[in-house]
Amino acid sequence: MEHPENDKAYKGLKVNGGVESMGSVNPYLSTMRRKRAAELSVNDYVEGILRGDVTVLSRAVTLVESLLPEHQAIAQEVVERCLPYSGKSVRVGITGVPGAGKSTSIDAFGMHLLNEYGGKLAVLAVDPSSERSKGSILGDKTRMERLSLHPSAFIRPSASAGSLGGVARKTRETIVLCEAAGYDKVFVETVGVGQSETAVYSMVDFFLLIQIAGAGDELQGIKRGIMEMADGIVINKADGENADAARRAAVHYRNALQLFPMPASGLRPQVLTYSGFYDIGIKEVWNMVMGYIDTVRSNGAFDERRNSQLKYWMYETIEESLKSRFYNAPGMEELLSKYEQLAYAGKMTSFAAAGAVLDSYDKKIV
Amino acid sequence: MEHPENDKAYKGLKVNGGVESMGSVNPYLSTMRRKRAAELSVNDYVEGILRGDVTVLSRAVTLVESLLPEHQAIAQEVVERCLPYSGKSVRVGITGVPGAGKSTSIDAFGMHLLNEYGGKLAVLAVDPSSERSKGSILGDKTRMERLSLHPSAFIRPSASAGSLGGVARKTRETIVLCEAAGYDKVFVETVGVGQSETAVYSMVDFFLLIQIAGAGDELQGIKRGIMEMADGIVINKADGENADAARRAAVHYRNALQLFPMPASGLRPQVLTYSGFYDIGIKEVWNMVMGYIDTVRSNGAFDERRNSQLKYWMYETIEESLKSRFYNAPGMEELLSKYEQLAYAGKMTSFAAAGAVLDSYDKKIV
Repeated sequence: MEHPENDKAYKGLKVNGGVESMGSVNPYLSTMRRKRAAELSVNDYVEGILRGDVTVLSRAVTLVESLLPEHQAIAQEVVERCLPYSGKSVRVGITGVPGAGKSTSIDAFGMHLLNEYGGKLAVLAVDPSSERSKGSILGDKTRMERLSLHPSAFIRPSASAGSLGGVARKTRETIVLCEAAGYDKVFVETVGVGQSETAVYSMVDFFLLIQIAGAGDELQGIKRGIMEMADGIVINKADGENADAARRAAVHYRNALQLFPMPASGLRPQVLTYSGFYDIGIKEVWNMVMGYIDTVRSNGAFDERRNSQLKYWMYETIEESLKSRFYNAPGMEELLSKYEQLAYAGKMTSFAAAGAVLDSYDKKIV
Repeated sequence: MEHPENDKAYKGLKVNGGVESMGSVNPYLSTMRRKRAAELSVNDYVEGILRGDVTVLSRAVTLVESLLPEHQAIAQEVVERCLPYSGKSVRVGITGVPGAGKSTSIDAFGMHLLNEYGGKLAVLAVDPSSERSKGSILGDKTRMERLSLHPSAFIRPSASAGSLGGVARKTRETIVLCEAAGYDKVFVETVGVGQSETAVYSMVDFFLLIQIAGAGDELQGIKRGIMEMADGIVINKADGENADAARRAAVHYRNALQLFPMPASGLRPQVLTYSGFYDIGIKEVWNMVMGYIDTVRSNGAFDERRNSQLKYWMYETIEESLKSRFYNAPGMEELLSKYEQLAYAGKMTSFAAAGAVLDSYDKKIV
């Protein structure tokens, strides 16, 4: 029997009520409104965000995501001014292959957190591929049936334009804005098939990998190294006749995890089973996450990780800029292609080819 | 009972005969001789290498490893002129944690290859840490008792000076020279604890991971991702009362490997057990390696991998140069430290900090 989550009719279900009022964004509506609305000053943005106004927050995020230089200048100022009010949330990265049930899980996780802990939850995403592939994550917010109607939830799809570095930066800046607006829990969703997990891993306090029971080759679609990044692994769809397979998969993962080095936190990742669709085991998953956060907060690993992330993004940005300036220099593509061919043909070593390209770049004769 | 390979008395055993005559290098002797010998011209080097003269080959490798600009200029010319004669060997990377028995294994593997397939074998190493740590690999060639006496084997320790990129480059260029000198099998050894495995993986046709049976946590000392790079895993010391544990470890690894994505070659890594010390299962290991090589040669994956390696090293060299020029700019260390502190203190985002550092670099006011 197919799992009910995979049911086409269910997938087609639409929930229309109240989406805009929660500050989540219909891009067309938002653009229209922005044109109509009076321009906000940096002060307007910052004050609106600090008093938790979701409409202002939404507009600020749109500004952060904008590619227009004049928007970026204002966005930078808003972000810098919000920075002192940020940093106080628990940031959880959530990844898993398509079909693992991420949206349904986030719906269940978010409802549990808001009911159990109160506060406010922001759900963001990093998905640089969403423009190319149709499978945009968070795009179909109707999959988060309950959360999308909850007044304390702010759901925002991934900025889809630009490089991974660009999209990740926008998400990092959006986290700052959300935290300044009083969101004390942040989910950052990503699909577990590209390079975006490293980016998400490097912006969260806990990285949760959602898996499902498979044929012993659960990691087939998963990028190298992603399992080593996980702070916890949870097997979804542990319900009905699928429950046994999920438990077997959990044993499988527990054994495999023993082969990996101990994480810097000193905490070995746990493996749990749950069902996002049937709301089974959700509490246990979040006891694990919050227990982890408590431990790393008290042993100093939390702050260490946050600082190393600040450093990571600073150096990552520097190195990405150095590379993009080089690779985007005029004529560079042809130059590289020419020397690649010479290397393939055995006419020169890779090192000599690299040296020749760098020489041309330095002489600006590219 | 301790395994005989771990016996201190055995480790201390010295074999003195014939080392220099095989072209392997005693650095002191080699330096003295180089001073005494007439300087060789580029032509002398190339001709000597092409006729398989191990003394000339040794001197050329020393030149490649030299940090003196005048040596490097000659070395480059020699390498470029040897390039058309290179590329025809089977290159095998060999890694494993200290204590896995790499030297003893290489001795057994090399003897088997030379006896079974004929030809000539070069044994090189990548170990950028050998200057800092005492654990220089291949430094104690006496561990390769039989191979170091074999007239068709050329054993050369790792260049120990410089960055990983620098050391890897020297090893790549040494491979070119060895191949031009008729070595049709090349081993590149590395220790499985640093970042050098990626470098070695990116210069070989087959990457062999040597493991030993442990307490269910065999990967403790092994760098993230190294298992995913392996084209084959072999469990050493499968002898005597250790044989069962080795077989259990092999099962363990086979299960774990099923969790990883299928490699580009289309061949799932095999896991075998053997004993380098007692010469058990060596033939099976090399049937696996050579079978793999035959398959990838016929399905095109061999050439694809070689070309992608040429490209990898070209781009790696370019990007390393861009970074090292940046990070070695005068005053850069202080500048970076200043902005790191500002980011930690929440005074500016990582992105703004990166931008400020790049601005200073561009204005050369660093």
